[in-house]
Amino acid sequence: MAGNEFRVGLLGCGTVGGAFAELLNERAEEIERFNGRRPVLAGVLTRSQGSFEEILEGSDLVVEVMGGLEPAREYLLRAMQAGKDVVTANKQLLSQHGEELYETARERDVRLRFEAAVGGVVPVVRTLEESLSATPIERIHGIVNGTTNYILTEMSGGASYAEALADAQQSGYAEADPSDDVSGRDAAAKMAILARLAFGTPVHLDEVRFEGIEHIQSDDLQYARELDLGLKLVGTAERRQGGLSVSVYPTFLYSGHPLAAISGSFNAVTVESETITEITLSGPGAGGRQTASAVLGDVVSVMTGGARPPAPPLALPLIEDVESAFYLHLDVADRPGVLATVTQVLGEQQVSIKSVVQRGMGEHARLVMVTHPVLESALRAAVERLAGFDFVRSDPRTIRVIEEEFM
Amino acid sequence: MAGNEFRVGLLGCGTVGGAFAELLNERAEEIERFNGRRPVLAGVLTRSQGSFEEILEGSDLVVEVMGGLEPAREYLLRAMQAGKDVVTANKQLLSQHGEELYETARERDVRLRFEAAVGGVVPVVRTLEESLSATPIERIHGIVNGTTNYILTEMSGGASYAEALADAQQSGYAEADPSDDVSGRDAAAKMAILARLAFGTPVHLDEVRFEGIEHIQSDDLQYARELDLGLKLVGTAERRQGGLSVSVYPTFLYSGHPLAAISGSFNAVTVESETITEITLSGPGAGGRQTASAVLGDVVSVMTGGARPPAPPLALPLIEDVESAFYLHLDVADRPGVLATVTQVLGEQQVSIKSVVQRGMGEHARLVMVTHPVLESALRAAVERLAGFDFVRSDPRTIRVIEEEFM
Repeated sequence: MAGNEFRVGLLGCGTVGGAFAELLNERAEEIERFNGRRPVLAGVLTRSQGSFEEILEGSDLVVEVMGGLEPAREYLLRAMQAGKDVVTANKQLLSQHGEELYETARERDVRLRFEAAVGGVVPVVRTLEESLSATPIERIHGIVNGTTNYILTEMSGGASYAEALADAQQSGYAEADPSDDVSGRDAAAKMAILARLAFGTPVHLDEVRFEGIEHIQSDDLQYARELDLGLKLVGTAERRQGGLSVSVYPTFLYSGHPLAAISGSFNAVTVESETITEITLSGPGAGGRQTASAVLGDVVSVMTGGARPPAPPLALPLIEDVESAFYLHLDVADRPGVLATVTQVLGEQQVSIKSVVQRGMGEHARLVMVTHPVLESALRAAVERLAGFDFVRSDPRTIRVIEEEFM
Repeated sequence: MAGNEFRVGLLGCGTVGGAFAELLNERAEEIERFNGRRPVLAGVLTRSQGSFEEILEGSDLVVEVMGGLEPAREYLLRAMQAGKDVVTANKQLLSQHGEELYETARERDVRLRFEAAVGGVVPVVRTLEESLSATPIERIHGIVNGTTNYILTEMSGGASYAEALADAQQSGYAEADPSDDVSGRDAAAKMAILARLAFGTPVHLDEVRFEGIEHIQSDDLQYARELDLGLKLVGTAERRQGGLSVSVYPTFLYSGHPLAAISGSFNAVTVESETITEITLSGPGAGGRQTASAVLGDVVSVMTGGARPPAPPLALPLIEDVESAFYLHLDVADRPGVLATVTQVLGEQQVSIKSVVQRGMGEHARLVMVTHPVLESALRAAVERLAGFDFVRSDPRTIRVIEEEFM
């Protein structure tokens, strides 16, 4: 009975699109049972076939899983302008043209849903958009890239970066060209989207400070373990100094932190607020079927009359120079007075030391320190000065640390 | 401007009700900003003042945080019959009269939301009801009672049950009469609600098999640690043998299990499905302000036009005798042939041993075993036979174990 159908137009039929078509078919009957309407594929647009205009015409809702900026952006805008609800998994598009899309959804009073764009099947978008919409959020920490978490998990077992990357590629957790993942850019796009949801402030991908994991050396992971620290690529969005700070950095976590236990290709997001203390959501990063499952969840939520378009933006200023604790690794000559000089230079920049591990290695020594929170600019200034001393034998290495204490 | 107001009637003004009224006031402006309507308290019913009829008349939505079965049930039914949307935090009511409430919501086409009834601020209800509504769920494991998790965490540090309970009472994590929590009944009510959401099958509190933590001895926790096991009060709802099994038992988990790291008064729920592998949601168990925050999230979701009433029920048969791995603790005479007899008796009942720790204690020995999965009835039969031997010096103790392997 056609009047009882809910027609879904599908743009893109790669891994995710194919899995979505399959899943929709498998679950149509159950969805009809609790929803009253049966979702059906009204048309599929691939590179070689299908017409966007015909699909748009014949659909109640449009799903975009093509990826890339264009023509995905144009198609989503045109679908919304035609009054259709839309679902997308496109994090690059949302992190670069999100406001244009959100505004169009508001103007046309249609739904724009994108659970699959962040965190795979972990329902972090909906949790921020709905469950926590009345909660003043202080901070989000996220492991939002499964490839890098897989690589860092392997490295914590002793593998080098190159070995871990090769392993990830062989196991299907990293692409042949992994640069978007290992540079932190993929995670940065996701944090831009989450920051917009949590803090109402538009954040463009270009405004997210990020750093990847390519330069991480496996001995850093070994030293850090002695300090009870494990390394993750952590995205952070938080209120700071009256503004908003959004960043992605390799970061050390103490073993008690909820993200410390997230291993392999899993994703997780921790949301902190005075009202709720903190909640953590975790699950597998995006595989084709998991992502398709998140997309289908969005389709069903539109069918059941889910949430409205995003609120108009607020505008917290973006803060760049924020406080953080740091891990600092120095390779120094093993002679008297070195530690005294190092601590003096750090002290002059208000960098205070929380813990030190020093280890002699013949003629030189390794000095591994964790600082108390300090402005990044002050830490950078101190490190620059230290690098100028002749007793410092190689470039100092710094990695952020999330402190132990909880709210 | 009264036309722009969304009027909330509040039934009950204890810890949660008071915190809700406060939070509503704090957040009203922000909610109006993204929602267009400002939520206001239209009336409060307490034991000593207020009229239900007047509050009903003057409200767009009714929040019930009185607790107890009556008059909460009557008020919620009457509110829905009058066409009002309702929000409740009442797990006892939902686990005993859920179908009556769900059916009334369907008949009157109103929304009935209850995020705060399970998991405190952890958005597990919404995740099951919406994000995963199109996902065929295989299993839910939950730590859904903060009091018992706090006590077990203390006991794993060496405290006795009595000491840990006294500590929990002093710290405000356990009530003066803790029986509903420590008996497992509170967790059973929550698992009945989650099972209905995940599997569509009505489950009454009376149909949930449950066992509490009162009989747990701290030496069991010590032995188990040698086998890399930690103890939690785990609720389970899962498809088994063509039906549904719902239970709450003290359960050992291997350290790699996502629930193993949940400590103190935190709650967590793991949802497993072939499509999504598994996701885990965790956060603080219910404090007044956290529960109020979940209630407010429900109110906002109604304001924004959230999900529809629950689907009509399916009817999977409830399965009682299910397979599980078990921890088995035997106090035996330390003489030749004892282990051989024990293993023979177990073998006759098809109970196969995965690992054993034996420790001599002078004239007797402690035998701590973990079995492979076995039907509960078979394990019980074996244990009954063992208890009859004269070399068994005290009642055998058994505790369920969730196996290491993941989907």
